[in-house]
Amino acid sequence: ATDFEVCIVVPKLSRAATGEDCVASLVRELEGAGLLVERVRGVPAEFIKLSASMGILGRAASEMQMKKLTCIGMELQFEWEQVAAFVRQPDGSLFSWRERFTCFRYLIYGIVNKTNSEISLKFDDKEFYWKQNESLLRRLEDEGVVKLVFPLHEEIKRKQLLRNWALNWHDFTWQPIDEVYSYFGTKIATYFAFLGMYTRWLFFPAVSGLATQLIDFGSFQWLVLPAFFIFVISWAVFFLQFWKRKNSALLARWGINYSFAEYKASANELEPIRHYLSIEREEEKNFDDAPAEKRRLQRNEWSGVLLRIRNNAIIVLGIICLQLPFELAYAHLYEKTETEALRYVLTALYLVAIQYYTRIGGKVSVILIKYENNQGEQSSADSLIYKVFGLYFMQSYIGLFYHASLYRDILTLRKVLIQRLVVSQVLENLIENSIPYLKYSYKKYSAVHKKRERESPSGKSVRLSTRVEKEYLKPSYTASIGEELEDGLFDDFLELALQFGMIMMFACAFPLIFCFAALNNATEIRADALKLLVMLKRPVPRAAATIGAWLNIFQFLIVMAICTNCLLLVCLYDEEGKWRIEPGLAAILIMEHALLLVKFGFSHFVPEEPAWVRANRVRYVAQAQTVCSQQLLRSISKLDRKWE
Amino acid sequence: ATDFEVCIVVPKLSRAATGEDCVASLVRELEGAGLLVERVRGVPAEFIKLSASMGILGRAASEMQMKKLTCIGMELQFEWEQVAAFVRQPDGSLFSWRERFTCFRYLIYGIVNKTNSEISLKFDDKEFYWKQNESLLRRLEDEGVVKLVFPLHEEIKRKQLLRNWALNWHDFTWQPIDEVYSYFGTKIATYFAFLGMYTRWLFFPAVSGLATQLIDFGSFQWLVLPAFFIFVISWAVFFLQFWKRKNSALLARWGINYSFAEYKASANELEPIRHYLSIEREEEKNFDDAPAEKRRLQRNEWSGVLLRIRNNAIIVLGIICLQLPFELAYAHLYEKTETEALRYVLTALYLVAIQYYTRIGGKVSVILIKYENNQGEQSSADSLIYKVFGLYFMQSYIGLFYHASLYRDILTLRKVLIQRLVVSQVLENLIENSIPYLKYSYKKYSAVHKKRERESPSGKSVRLSTRVEKEYLKPSYTASIGEELEDGLFDDFLELALQFGMIMMFACAFPLIFCFAALNNATEIRADALKLLVMLKRPVPRAAATIGAWLNIFQFLIVMAICTNCLLLVCLYDEEGKWRIEPGLAAILIMEHALLLVKFGFSHFVPEEPAWVRANRVRYVAQAQTVCSQQLLRSISKLDRKWE
Repeated sequence: ATDFEVCIVVPKLSRAATGEDCVASLVRELEGAGLLVERVRGVPAEFIKLSASMGILGRAASEMQMKKLTCIGMELQFEWEQVAAFVRQPDGSLFSWRERFTCFRYLIYGIVNKTNSEISLKFDDKEFYWKQNESLLRRLEDEGVVKLVFPLHEEIKRKQLLRNWALNWHDFTWQPIDEVYSYFGTKIATYFAFLGMYTRWLFFPAVSGLATQLIDFGSFQWLVLPAFFIFVISWAVFFLQFWKRKNSALLARWGINYSFAEYKASANELEPIRHYLSIEREEEKNFDDAPAEKRRLQRNEWSGVLLRIRNNAIIVLGIICLQLPFELAYAHLYEKTETEALRYVLTALYLVAIQYYTRIGGKVSVILIKYENNQGEQSSADSLIYKVFGLYFMQSYIGLFYHASLYRDILTLRKVLIQRLVVSQVLENLIENSIPYLKYSYKKYSAVHKKRERESPSGKSVRLSTRVEKEYLKPSYTASIGEELEDGLFDDFLELALQFGMIMMFACAFPLIFCFAALNNATEIRADALKLLVMLKRPVPRAAATIGAWLNIFQFLIVMAICTNCLLLVCLYDEEGKWRIEPGLAAILIMEHALLLVKFGFSHFVPEEPAWVRANRVRYVAQAQTVCSQQLLRSISKLDRKWE
Repeated sequence: ATDFEVCIVVPKLSRAATGEDCVASLVRELEGAGLLVERVRGVPAEFIKLSASMGILGRAASEMQMKKLTCIGMELQFEWEQVAAFVRQPDGSLFSWRERFTCFRYLIYGIVNKTNSEISLKFDDKEFYWKQNESLLRRLEDEGVVKLVFPLHEEIKRKQLLRNWALNWHDFTWQPIDEVYSYFGTKIATYFAFLGMYTRWLFFPAVSGLATQLIDFGSFQWLVLPAFFIFVISWAVFFLQFWKRKNSALLARWGINYSFAEYKASANELEPIRHYLSIEREEEKNFDDAPAEKRRLQRNEWSGVLLRIRNNAIIVLGIICLQLPFELAYAHLYEKTETEALRYVLTALYLVAIQYYTRIGGKVSVILIKYENNQGEQSSADSLIYKVFGLYFMQSYIGLFYHASLYRDILTLRKVLIQRLVVSQVLENLIENSIPYLKYSYKKYSAVHKKRERESPSGKSVRLSTRVEKEYLKPSYTASIGEELEDGLFDDFLELALQFGMIMMFACAFPLIFCFAALNNATEIRADALKLLVMLKRPVPRAAATIGAWLNIFQFLIVMAICTNCLLLVCLYDEEGKWRIEPGLAAILIMEHALLLVKFGFSHFVPEEPAWVRANRVRYVAQAQTVCSQQLLRSISKLDRKWE
């Protein structure tokens, strides 16, 4: 008795079906595959809700040779008969949401024509043929009969999460991460875990930032800013290091084998290479195996590296030669303009232009990445993140740098900072949450309106009665750039990274900024949770196990922050603009180098993986080696003999 | 028909043995363990040479549950019956030299008294008891009967290596690394591979350094030094990155599973923890397993971290508060002294003092490390390397910095650099090679002399006739500090690292220094090879698979080099000492930051592991998973049921 988890959307037939149509045969085939099917006729379309028992999913998993973590810490092909060998989820179920969804997809796309002839299918008045060994669902998608396949919300769990998480106002940073994981999957749960920890940690710099503003330190006042700067940098370094620990602890709890994550990634990467090898295996067998293969792989690798360097060079040049002058021109014109009205016009023009520029940049990046011979989806997504972040980085900060360098006036810089942070963050939060709602309302309105027009011109009230049709009309969780590589998490992370960059890079100019950020993030958690639970379709679960490329970006921002804050301190210290390397400036330069050293040396002391996680992992592997050693050996040497 | 590989040294009995002595019973027991034994009566002592057939070694390996890499890329316990499953060495033999030596040690130290009573043993006139279950060899060592157990040179292979490697004058940087590996083991072979690659790569900066000195660039002369600086830094970054690739390629060729090296290390690390866990398992079973254990492990981990931080703080404070003033005082006094004679006296005093200081520092480090709760031998050794390198770093460079900052005079700095480099490197090479020879000669002389006195006062010429006694008299390959953690490789690597630091950190002051270094290293390869093959006992093989801590030190030296060279350039540029941030100084600062960015960003583009190594690895694992999956699963779920 599981919930309905996946839904297929087909158009509603306007009249009673004449005879057997293709939807009926789809339903029959789905039922034949062991799925529980429920047809719902809604206002905008007809919905086929699907559910499956554990046994059906398990058989699908073993058919598709799904790799799953076993008790001995090794990933093996799933087998329904040996269920006891596999690690269970924290909530006791066998499959995670992502695995279940993968099985569903396998089941519904795996319905093929097994007969020896083409089958003729009808829909409305159209007739088409279902070829041999063709997937029925793909055929129907191509013919426009199946409009969408999307995962359904589970109402009980959703309500529970809404109560415990999105509308839980008692503790601002506590979140039921395990439940989020089992409902949304690893990637989204990791995002919220990061956001929660970040918000909690922000408390320290927020308090000390407040202290620098409120307390008068008397004759030590000149020491306050450098001290705050050092504190903030060490805080950030500690924070990221402890996040890594937390991340590996979370993964251990969720039964994801982190230590082999790197290795698994490389296994994915080599999929194309292995294929290539198997093709050319015969000719290789003739002469010595190793050197030719090695040479081919090396050529492949280096051409990949060169391509990546070229693409990055294109992006960097694009940013420096196109975006930088544009941003500087805007900042300059903005300063030169005298009337307020013209400024608003200028800003509006700028915003429109930058929208297009970013979109074009994103598209170019996606195109470049496609040619990049990136191995594995994760690696492509990371590559995209770096490239697009470059664009946004320039866009968000260059204006600030311009103001900082133009005025060398802390007060103006502060004003700009507040403006940017408050306006951008608050507006973004509002837009982020209202746009999906508006989209949903519009779609609902148009669906109801159409229906009313068609059926009852008398004005009988037509309402959306079932949940499934409401969900269908909700927008999906997509990224503003490149739908295929990233989901909506990209935008959320981008926002977080830009905020982190802003508060870190200008920490010395305006210590109070940390308070704003902390407040903002506390609301961000609830807002994002609400968005996911109420505003959007349930997102398709993704595999990523860490925050990946974003962590590197945060690290990079810390290094940038060290440099920019030193520059700010020099500006503050050297009011007369003498620019002589006197004790003050020399001290700042030395401090910069010391902090850079600390940044890179620190990871040496705090291991990224907590000891207890490692202890668990090692214990499993030791068990495996003692128990299965002999059996494994026997089968390996049998294998060897066979090959010989 | 294998060579004799291990030798046990026992004193020579002065008269004919009366009845059965303990050496005879040792020989009997060794023969009983399946070893081939040969007794040699030499001049200084009596030698028991040992050899074993492959079968005996294999049985020992499976008895001691030695882990060995299998064809599927997993390490499993060795079993003699399933020999086909294990990866062979590049030269086709089953065991590497390190594994063979471990088996030998296991065999000879594994001879225990299996009877139910103590056995009385006699030696000379002494009588002592061999207790139940006590190792015979340990007993004999404690009683002073067994003086030494050491690995023997294999004459055929040694001669071959001498011809192909140490005395091969055709190609200066080519080395038969695979043969070195199979003769000396991973650690020494890795050192020579690194030295060879370093020397080969030094060619580029040596040539360009020469070019900066010889060619007159006319009006671009002021650009030469910065360009050279950028070139050298990028060279160093590339070099280390490519070394990592080469290292993993070497390990792949030698059948060492590098990717799991990190994982294996952690398995070693947890040895004590696991022991601890197994003791307390019972009480844990009572209440919930996880939290208590987790808390204990976490406490353990953090106390370890704090201890390590404290120890490092002690070392750093020791260096800064004790060594720095001492070095500065010496440099200052040296400058102030006017007569040459006084300078020599001062230098002599300094050298004696620094000897003691370094030795004390090393001892303190070893003591600190013992308390450090370092997990695993490798980690302790790394910790020692960092601490001792700190001492030597200060000792080697602080004087140079003093000169550089005192004079701001490139010519004087150059003179000091040449002096240091030529004198230290040449002298060290000489001393390194002559001291073992002198030691050996002295020992030989005293052995022969003693013998002559005792036996034939008539002056009959006594000579060392067998190889084994000559080898016994040769010094062993030990480090100048802490014998237990490191062997002689420590000194060789230290020399290399100090040289690298010197040429990199002062590259701008004296570009020609790279030529000296290249020449020096070309001779160093031969000299070190000769030392190992001719001057010393065969070293005990060690497990380390990478150059470990030294690689981090090289990386650190590159970062230091970026900073010091910028400082040098500033000195050169700012001749009048105005210290104003004008275009020149600003450009240098920007260059510094850009280079630091390149240093840390570069590793992103060149993967540390070549694609073909990864392809091999992944292919093995994929095979394992497809072949053994079912069998493994069955045994795991059986296991699970048993536990429940």
